[in-house]
Amino acid sequence: MGYEEFTIEGRNAVIEAFRSGRTIDKLFLQDGCQDGPVMTIKREAKKHDTLIKFVSKERLDQLSETGKHQGVIAYAAAYEYAEVEDILARAEEKGEPPFLFLLDNIEDPHNLGAIIRTANLAGAHGVIIPKNRAVGLTATVARTSAGALHYTPVAKVTNLAKTIEELKDKGIWFVCADMDGTRMYDLNLKGAIGLVIGNEGNGVGRLVKEKCDMVASIPMKGDIDSLNASVAAGVLAYEIVRQRCM
Amino acid sequence: MGYEEFTIEGRNAVIEAFRSGRTIDKLFLQDGCQDGPVMTIKREAKKHDTLIKFVSKERLDQLSETGKHQGVIAYAAAYEYAEVEDILARAEEKGEPPFLFLLDNIEDPHNLGAIIRTANLAGAHGVIIPKNRAVGLTATVARTSAGALHYTPVAKVTNLAKTIEELKDKGIWFVCADMDGTRMYDLNLKGAIGLVIGNEGNGVGRLVKEKCDMVASIPMKGDIDSLNASVAAGVLAYEIVRQRCM
Repeated sequence: MGYEEFTIEGRNAVIEAFRSGRTIDKLFLQDGCQDGPVMTIKREAKKHDTLIKFVSKERLDQLSETGKHQGVIAYAAAYEYAEVEDILARAEEKGEPPFLFLLDNIEDPHNLGAIIRTANLAGAHGVIIPKNRAVGLTATVARTSAGALHYTPVAKVTNLAKTIEELKDKGIWFVCADMDGTRMYDLNLKGAIGLVIGNEGNGVGRLVKEKCDMVASIPMKGDIDSLNASVAAGVLAYEIVRQRCM
Repeated sequence: MGYEEFTIEGRNAVIEAFRSGRTIDKLFLQDGCQDGPVMTIKREAKKHDTLIKFVSKERLDQLSETGKHQGVIAYAAAYEYAEVEDILARAEEKGEPPFLFLLDNIEDPHNLGAIIRTANLAGAHGVIIPKNRAVGLTATVARTSAGALHYTPVAKVTNLAKTIEELKDKGIWFVCADMDGTRMYDLNLKGAIGLVIGNEGNGVGRLVKEKCDMVASIPMKGDIDSLNASVAAGVLAYEIVRQRCM
């Protein structure tokens, strides 16, 4: 479990990385490149649901550490991801109803790290993040998690709404946070539960919200719009903890 | 209320800044400088309880933006501080028992900003920070507060323990967070209350902790030591909100 995030540059190196099973968080390809090796890389990326960004040669030159990117730079995950099944198995081992965090596109690595730290201390069994757009497990996330990444598994899924659907079939209830929801103190948050936290700017996406069984609101008595995403996650998680231990 | 933090360089400019009443968060003086103007600056700094750092000429050269520091650089506050009395007056105006946040040396500007944001939304009347060591109201704090600095007054005091003592005489109870405390759900946190949040690494200082009426603990079920300081502040603040509205 190394914590160094790193870039992989050049066609063969990136093809090798995909084939060896390494998780690639993001792939930069030079606009207009269409030759054989690049097509192979695109195919691998699609197979693994990797986010592809098409950029100019100048941008790649900036990103490049070696100066030999050949039109291809990949950002590899600093950390190995778990599977959703591993997280559920952990709950079962402990003889506890599953308690999951699902993050709908958290973008700031400091928030992601702080939320994984909270998940660990609130006794959650794991964290589920979507493959695209959201930040992955970078070195900053690992550092901000204050060691929690060593203990709390993080799974990456292609489609968060679909994963929620599947987990509902296993008896897990889902609650997301939104301002128009029911006051969190008035909801029953006991039992097998998935806490869904939205993006910093836009909150929880419509498709994901529709899948949730409950919408919880945090009482807001102030003048501004919303809490920091990791603070909101902490406040909601500890309302779940309170209800579980009362 | 500008948000730009800025440096003031040179002897006359710094003396002027002090005399015009501007809040100086930190003062850098060149080691060994003992002439008249520098002695005047030291006197002003002591009068205002400004933190003085003695550094080498090389360090000042690095910090300098103008290249003409004459052995003196001051960091001016980006924001005007309130007085503790202003905060209490705000509670009275609203006809609410005072709800204060006291931060015992928060060092990370992102944490300070997130905590001010939380204070605003939890309905606290103001935030009190100590003059020395802790981070002040920099541009980063203002940005991270997401606008809350426009609404929630922040006061800076010389001695946090002494301020607590004085506020206790006015009928405010103080609760600090520490792992060896009583489970927060089991404390009575209603009424006039000051929530004391400790430093990121060391928690609440001994002198401050001794002044507190209650020590609250957040249940910790995980493998690591502690929550992020701004998350812990949020969790505790919302336990106070819950008890106030139940």
